[in-house]
Amino acid sequence: MPIDLPMTEAVSDLILASDGSLVRRTVLPGGVRLLTETDTSVRSVSIGMWLPVGSRDETAQHAGSTHVLEHLLFKGTARRSALDIAQAFDEVGGESNAVTSKEHTFYYGRVRSADLPLAVDILADMITSAALAPEALATEREVILEELAMAADDPTDVGYETFLAQVLGPDTPLGRPVGGTEETVGAVTAEDVRAHYAEHYRPDQLVVTAVGDLDHDALAALLLERLAAGGWDLADGALPAARRPDDGAPGLGAGVDAAAVDTLRLARDTEQNHVYLGGPSISATSEERQTLAILMSILGGGMSSRLFQHIREERGLAYSVYSFSAGYRGAGLFGLYAACRPARTAQVVELMAAELEAMGREGVSEDEMRRALGQITGSMALGLEDTASRMGRLGTSELVHGRYTDVDEAIARYATVRAGDVQDLARRLASSFTTRVDVGPAVV
Amino acid sequence: MPIDLPMTEAVSDLILASDGSLVRRTVLPGGVRLLTETDTSVRSVSIGMWLPVGSRDETAQHAGSTHVLEHLLFKGTARRSALDIAQAFDEVGGESNAVTSKEHTFYYGRVRSADLPLAVDILADMITSAALAPEALATEREVILEELAMAADDPTDVGYETFLAQVLGPDTPLGRPVGGTEETVGAVTAEDVRAHYAEHYRPDQLVVTAVGDLDHDALAALLLERLAAGGWDLADGALPAARRPDDGAPGLGAGVDAAAVDTLRLARDTEQNHVYLGGPSISATSEERQTLAILMSILGGGMSSRLFQHIREERGLAYSVYSFSAGYRGAGLFGLYAACRPARTAQVVELMAAELEAMGREGVSEDEMRRALGQITGSMALGLEDTASRMGRLGTSELVHGRYTDVDEAIARYATVRAGDVQDLARRLASSFTTRVDVGPAVV
Repeated sequence: MPIDLPMTEAVSDLILASDGSLVRRTVLPGGVRLLTETDTSVRSVSIGMWLPVGSRDETAQHAGSTHVLEHLLFKGTARRSALDIAQAFDEVGGESNAVTSKEHTFYYGRVRSADLPLAVDILADMITSAALAPEALATEREVILEELAMAADDPTDVGYETFLAQVLGPDTPLGRPVGGTEETVGAVTAEDVRAHYAEHYRPDQLVVTAVGDLDHDALAALLLERLAAGGWDLADGALPAARRPDDGAPGLGAGVDAAAVDTLRLARDTEQNHVYLGGPSISATSEERQTLAILMSILGGGMSSRLFQHIREERGLAYSVYSFSAGYRGAGLFGLYAACRPARTAQVVELMAAELEAMGREGVSEDEMRRALGQITGSMALGLEDTASRMGRLGTSELVHGRYTDVDEAIARYATVRAGDVQDLARRLASSFTTRVDVGPAVV
Repeated sequence: MPIDLPMTEAVSDLILASDGSLVRRTVLPGGVRLLTETDTSVRSVSIGMWLPVGSRDETAQHAGSTHVLEHLLFKGTARRSALDIAQAFDEVGGESNAVTSKEHTFYYGRVRSADLPLAVDILADMITSAALAPEALATEREVILEELAMAADDPTDVGYETFLAQVLGPDTPLGRPVGGTEETVGAVTAEDVRAHYAEHYRPDQLVVTAVGDLDHDALAALLLERLAAGGWDLADGALPAARRPDDGAPGLGAGVDAAAVDTLRLARDTEQNHVYLGGPSISATSEERQTLAILMSILGGGMSSRLFQHIREERGLAYSVYSFSAGYRGAGLFGLYAACRPARTAQVVELMAAELEAMGREGVSEDEMRRALGQITGSMALGLEDTASRMGRLGTSELVHGRYTDVDEAIARYATVRAGDVQDLARRLASSFTTRVDVGPAVV
């Protein structure tokens, strides 16, 4: 059953029965939020520490600084060298990683249950006590420039980032690429990074989620102890106010028909042409997000989807063809993607757009609705067996939606979507095209 | 405890207690081998069907035909269209895929337990009754050519395939790329594919592995029933004789020092230069494979490895830098990889080779040995929580080693490796360089 979580309570402790598993949420002193799900069928724990700060929170001059900070957290703390951090995870065979996105920064570890205290200790140390030394910044900046160069060499990476920027606004905080550019990364100073760290890495911003063979209360105590040891003031704090969406991101319906969209061409000497075609859509919290998910499943979500069947299976025009969507605070986007040899591009693009238009004009069948629901339900059930996926779901619930939705409720919501809802959304999307990005050689 | 499996028994049924779990192996009528591990803590099953045939079994003129056949199995059977197959997996939210490698072809499904009969039915239908229609080949050939074009646009893909070919022998069955070339894929006929299918997709070749919420005997009965329904003759058959390794693949020690190796340059207008440097190593079944795994872990296997620390962390010269190895019947290889901007290439390559040379000259510390063992043990334990990984491990055990090794035994073997063994192997590898492949712009 859904339970709306009181977001302003200093301390709450809720137990939610979900699918036979136990999800608990506690607001700890200082406003640190801890969400866990105990699963004793495994002998490991996936743990994530989340900060609600991403490239969207940067100014143009400091583009990429959130990502630079994420890298620097691995370069050492008051107590640990970079090597200490690396060795600690490696020697227990654990996994660790970090991801910076447009709206979040996320540090992740997966370890055997016995090594959970180690993982908490290291992650808390990084979150509270990063050294952020100027010489570490100088070295790591070079690593990040190599990372940007690597992305620049991948046509799908370049195409997707450019597509996002064009749809969301190339000169807006939300539209800019997460990693910044060679220029902005080159300009980030140790002072910038320290200011960023001080502003955003605070108890009332931190969300910790963990799934696996764990004890919620023991983890809460351990987490508090390590955060306090790192110097954090854990006096009772109010939770942060919800952020307002940026102004200016275009909304669904802001575009035109696919045929009327200009192409931004990024010339590359590749064998394939990579095409991204789409425009603005609904936000991450829209009431229509289940409708969009079903639409995407039917349109281009699997081997039986319309795009895959009509473009790949029946005509052999592409190896990779699919539809995609992304949601943010107050903004979102949809897209159609295909990679094909240049001479086929015009036909593939016409077919892709025609599929969405046909869906808006003629709707979808009850059989397609049933299969899409089956696909979503089945993949959700299979996803539940992966502690990292569930840990990620807890984080998204808290950070994006402010509440936890159990799987039964989620499925029930998908089941309320009607074929007419999908058709209606398809019709609106089909006239919301704003952007086409092609990466590849000139069409021959 | 290890149990050597009698490979020639027509019917055997062994129960191995491993890590508290139950692994069973049965040789079914016709010689079909079924290996399962029952895990009732999940509600799904990962199932794989394996044939011991890969690009290594092709003639030069038919290069890529094994991969073409793998694609065609999804294009329909006597009873099912391509759409039927795609819809069946999609509508239950299952995962399905297939992989062709140098020595194996592998079809995979992951479904909720209740959908296991469906998965078995479809996979068995594909394995026994593929339609292999000429018109399906004509369409799918185009899809495969797009797949080859996609791979050609990825500098790491191009570099790795070229490196493998150079080390193993560019004109040998083992060295040729799995996917073939535009020319050879274009030349494959429906008759070729049918002959290949008839020769290799036979009861005595098939290995089925499954892990999850399953009953071994029920799965065995179902599998036999579906294979028989597909027209397979399941009279008792002997297991196939072990294949002999191809002649001609160079062995460890066939090379020279890294500095003496010529560079094969594949010119690409990319920002980074991608370097693959290495040579022949031990085979997949060598007694030294645990030694090699520990060596690779210390040299370039994680964030705390020598390559990562000395090239990325200390000097900021690369984002991606690691060592790798691959093993086959009677052959194997090792390599060092880095991607960096062109002006840094010479320094990075020199540092990479120097690390391996230093390891051969000065050895590794007991601390490094302890951490490598911890890393291997820990990641093995974490990997055990993933039914797909365990299903893959059962397949590799049967097809590569002919016996199942439980995790305790595997770890015990790693623990017998001494620092001196690692040093000795490092010394031999350091004089086994034969190949360097660079993909990228000319060095400025």
